[in-house]
Amino acid sequence: MNKYSDYLDYCKKIHDINMSIAVLNWDLETKMPKNGHKFRAQQISTLRKVSHELSTNKSYGDLLNKLKNNNALDFDQSRNIDVSLKKYNKTLKYDANFIEKESNLISEAFVKWRLAKEKNDFSIFEKSLEQLIQLRIKECEILGYKNHPYDALLDQYEPDLTTNEVDKIFQEIKDFLIPFIKKISNAKEIDDSFFYQYYNQKKQWDFGIDLLKGMDYDFNSGRQDLSAHPFSTHFSNEDARVTTRIDENNLSEMIWSCIHEGGHALYEQGLLSKNYGLPLGESISLGIHESQSRLWENNVGRSIEYWKYNYNKLKKYFEKQLINVSVNDFYKACNKVKPSLIRTNADELTYHLHILIRYEIEKGLIESSIKVQDLPEIWNKKYQEYLGITVPSDSMGVLQDIHWSHGSFGYFPTYTIGSLYAAQFFTQALYENEKLYDEISKGKSKNLLKWLREKIHKHGKKYSAQDLCIKVTGEKLNFNFFKKYAINKYTSMYDL
Amino acid sequence: MNKYSDYLDYCKKIHDINMSIAVLNWDLETKMPKNGHKFRAQQISTLRKVSHELSTNKSYGDLLNKLKNNNALDFDQSRNIDVSLKKYNKTLKYDANFIEKESNLISEAFVKWRLAKEKNDFSIFEKSLEQLIQLRIKECEILGYKNHPYDALLDQYEPDLTTNEVDKIFQEIKDFLIPFIKKISNAKEIDDSFFYQYYNQKKQWDFGIDLLKGMDYDFNSGRQDLSAHPFSTHFSNEDARVTTRIDENNLSEMIWSCIHEGGHALYEQGLLSKNYGLPLGESISLGIHESQSRLWENNVGRSIEYWKYNYNKLKKYFEKQLINVSVNDFYKACNKVKPSLIRTNADELTYHLHILIRYEIEKGLIESSIKVQDLPEIWNKKYQEYLGITVPSDSMGVLQDIHWSHGSFGYFPTYTIGSLYAAQFFTQALYENEKLYDEISKGKSKNLLKWLREKIHKHGKKYSAQDLCIKVTGEKLNFNFFKKYAINKYTSMYDL
Repeated sequence: MNKYSDYLDYCKKIHDINMSIAVLNWDLETKMPKNGHKFRAQQISTLRKVSHELSTNKSYGDLLNKLKNNNALDFDQSRNIDVSLKKYNKTLKYDANFIEKESNLISEAFVKWRLAKEKNDFSIFEKSLEQLIQLRIKECEILGYKNHPYDALLDQYEPDLTTNEVDKIFQEIKDFLIPFIKKISNAKEIDDSFFYQYYNQKKQWDFGIDLLKGMDYDFNSGRQDLSAHPFSTHFSNEDARVTTRIDENNLSEMIWSCIHEGGHALYEQGLLSKNYGLPLGESISLGIHESQSRLWENNVGRSIEYWKYNYNKLKKYFEKQLINVSVNDFYKACNKVKPSLIRTNADELTYHLHILIRYEIEKGLIESSIKVQDLPEIWNKKYQEYLGITVPSDSMGVLQDIHWSHGSFGYFPTYTIGSLYAAQFFTQALYENEKLYDEISKGKSKNLLKWLREKIHKHGKKYSAQDLCIKVTGEKLNFNFFKKYAINKYTSMYDL
Repeated sequence: MNKYSDYLDYCKKIHDINMSIAVLNWDLETKMPKNGHKFRAQQISTLRKVSHELSTNKSYGDLLNKLKNNNALDFDQSRNIDVSLKKYNKTLKYDANFIEKESNLISEAFVKWRLAKEKNDFSIFEKSLEQLIQLRIKECEILGYKNHPYDALLDQYEPDLTTNEVDKIFQEIKDFLIPFIKKISNAKEIDDSFFYQYYNQKKQWDFGIDLLKGMDYDFNSGRQDLSAHPFSTHFSNEDARVTTRIDENNLSEMIWSCIHEGGHALYEQGLLSKNYGLPLGESISLGIHESQSRLWENNVGRSIEYWKYNYNKLKKYFEKQLINVSVNDFYKACNKVKPSLIRTNADELTYHLHILIRYEIEKGLIESSIKVQDLPEIWNKKYQEYLGITVPSDSMGVLQDIHWSHGSFGYFPTYTIGSLYAAQFFTQALYENEKLYDEISKGKSKNLLKWLREKIHKHGKKYSAQDLCIKVTGEKLNFNFFKKYAINKYTSMYDL
C-alpha cells in the first residue's frame, strides 16, 4: 500500500466492519430474541478484534505516515490522513492486555452495577468501579495529556477539549443556573399533569412518526423501532435509524425521544455518501452530535412556534386527554423547570446541574481526590447543594446512570457542551434567516435543515469542533448564547 | 496454531463472521430502508472477503493437516477436522480471479434476469447465462469429479451425492409420477376456491404464529417477520429466524410458508450450542435441511390429523370465509394436485416434475448437450411433455426462478431429495411411535420433534447424509417411501 487510493480502500474496509458491528448491535437492541445474547456477544467481539487488527496493522500505519508528508494531497485529503493518523497512533498505544482487561472489567462491572441498582446496594458495584477507575487512570498515562489526566479521557469523546475549558464552562453554568433555577422554583409552578394520562401506544407511535416526517427525517434512509432505551445509530448516511420508547401513562417520553434521536439521525443522514468510511464522512464529536439532537429537541421542539403547528395534530390523536389544554398550556408544560432526581427526565435547565455533578465527581475520581467508597455521600451532598434535592436511595442516586458501568468517563460533559453548541448554532441560524421560527410555526423546517446541512452536517470531520464553531458562528464556544436563550425564554414564561 | 483448541478458536472466529453476514442479510431482506442497499452490499462484500481470507489462511491449513493425522482425537473431533479440511481444500482451489469474475457475473446476471423477466424477453438474459454456465463448467474442472462434471456442482449442496444416483432417482420419479398424476387429472377435481377470498393480514399473521407455536418453534430463540420471499436464517441455534409473506387474497401462501420455514428453523434450533461454529454444529446438507421443512409441511402439515386440530383454530379467525367448508374439504384442498406453470406454487406431487425439468436442463447445459439459446424451446417442450402444460411466456417459463441468475446450478435437485428423505424419515418415525399421528390430531408434536432432535438435528455434520439416513432408517435413500406415501394418500383422496 503506498497510494492515497490504497488508504481509501483500507479505511472503508475498516469502516464496513465497524458498521457491521453497528447492525449487530441495532438488532440486539431492537429485534433479537432473548436467547440470542450469548453468541451475539461473541460475534460482536470477533468483529471488534478484526477491526482492531486492521486498525493497528503496521503497513496501514506506514501508509498513513507516508501520506502525511505528501504535498500533493488537497485540504480534504490531508485532513482525512491527519485524523486517521491521530486515531491510528492512539489505537497503537493500547496493548492486547489492556484491551482484554478492559473488556473483562466492563462485562463484570455492568453485571455488578445492574445488581447493585436492583438491590439498592452501592457496595456491590464499589469494587468493580474502583478497578475501572484505576484502569482509566492508567489509560490517561498511556495516552498522555498536557495539564490534567482527565484531558486524555475528554479527548476521546470531544477531541481537543480540555479540562481547563470545561472547568470554566461549568463555573459559568454554576454561577448562572443555580440562582436562576432557584428563582424559577419560587415562581408559580407550571401544571403538566395532563402528560400523565392514558395515551394509547399505537396513536403515540403514529404521532412520533409524524414528528419525524415533519423534521424531514428521510424514512427511505432510515426507520424507527422500539427499544428499551431510545438511541440512534447508523450504518451509512443512507441508513441512519432511530428508536423510541413509549410509556402509555406519560406522553412526553415518546415526544422528546423522537425529536432528540431524530436530530441525531438528521446529522448522520446529512453526511456525504462520497465520504463514506472516511473521517470526512463521520460526525465530528459527541458534543457536536449532541448539539444536533438538542437543537431539534430544545430550540425547535420546545418552542411555542413548533407547537403552534404540531399541537393541532397531536390533539387529533388525543382529543379527550387534551380537551382543556391550550397550546400555550402545552408549550409551558413542555418547558416546566423543576429540580428532580433523575438526569434523563430532567428539564433543559436543571439537566446541566446533573451533568455538573457527574463532571465534578469524575474529575475527582481521576485525580484521586475522591474515593469510590465516599461516592454515595458526595453524590447526595451535591444533589442537596446544587438542586436542593434529597436523594432517597443510591438506586435513584449514584447508581442511576449506566455510563460508569460501561467504563465511560469523560462522556457526560459532552451532553452539556452539546446544548451550548446548540444554542450558539441556533442563534446564528436565526440571525441568518429571521423567518426560521415563522416557518417552524407553519410546520416547515426545510430551511433550517438546509442550513444545518450546509454549515455543519456535510463537512464531517473536515474541521475540528472548535474551528467549525468559529467558522459557523464567528466565535468559539460561548456560554452566553445558552444563557441568553434561557433568560429570554424562562423570564417571560415564569414571569420572573 | 498447533492444538485442537486452536482449531476450535479459529473455526468459531470464521463462523462468527459468517453469522454476522447472515444478520446483515436478514436485515437487508426484512427491515432495511430502501436507500441502504449500496453500502450494505459493500459491507457484506467486505465481511465475505475477511471470511475468505481467514478460511484460506495457510497456517489454518497446516493446522488442519496436522490434526488430520492426530490419533489422540475422538470420533467427533476427527469428524470436525475432516469436514473442515475438505472445505479448506475446496476453498483453496478458487483463485482471487475466479471469485471476482464470479461475483461480477452474478451481479450482472441478476440485473439482466430481472429485466428479462419483466420484459418477457429471454434474449436479455441469454448472454449472462451463457457466461455463468461457462464459469460453472470451468469450476467443475477446477474442483474435479469422478464421472460427470455435474457431480462437482451437486457436491456443493449435497455432499457425496452423484449425478448417477440422481439420474436413477429421477427415472423412478418419472416412471411413477407422470402416469400417477395423469390418473389424478382424470379424477374429479378438488375445490379449493375458498382459499382465494379476502383473509385479513393481521389475522393471518396471528394464525401463522399459532402454527409455529404449535410446532414448538421456540420464539425465545427466534422470531418471524415479513419479507418479499419467505426464508429461514440463523445466527446460532439460539437465534434461528423465519419470515413469511401474506397475500390477503390467498390464505395458503402464508400457511405453507410458516410451516415450511418453521421446519427449517426447528432443525437449526435443534443443533447443539456446544458445537456452535464447528461442522458438528452445522446442518448436513441442503437435502437434509429440506427434508425437515418438507416433513413438517407435507407429512405433518398436509395430513388430516394436523387439520383435525388446527382447523378449528383457523375457523375462529375466519368464520365467515370457512363457514361451508368441512375439515375434510379443507384437508383435500390442501392436497389438491394439478399441473401448473410455477414451481413455487406447485402441489407436492407435480413439484417434482418441475424439479426434474430443471435437473435435466442443468445437466445438459453443464455437459454442453443443451445450448443456452435453445432453452426456452426445450423448457416449453418439457412442460408440455411432463406436465401437459403449455407455457404462455418465458417470464412464466424458463425465467421464473431466481436460481440460475444467482449462478446456482446443482441446487434444484436438493428440493426433491429433501422430500424423499422426509418421506423416509417420517415413515421411520411412525414405525417407532405409532401414536404420532394421533398426537398430532391433538395438537401435540413434541414427541415427533424429540425424535427428529435425537435422530437428526443434534448430530449436525457428525455423519454424512447417506450415513445418517442408514443410521436412522436402516437403509439408504429409497424412493419407495415417497411413492408409498403418495399412493396411500392420493388413491383414497381421489378415489383412484
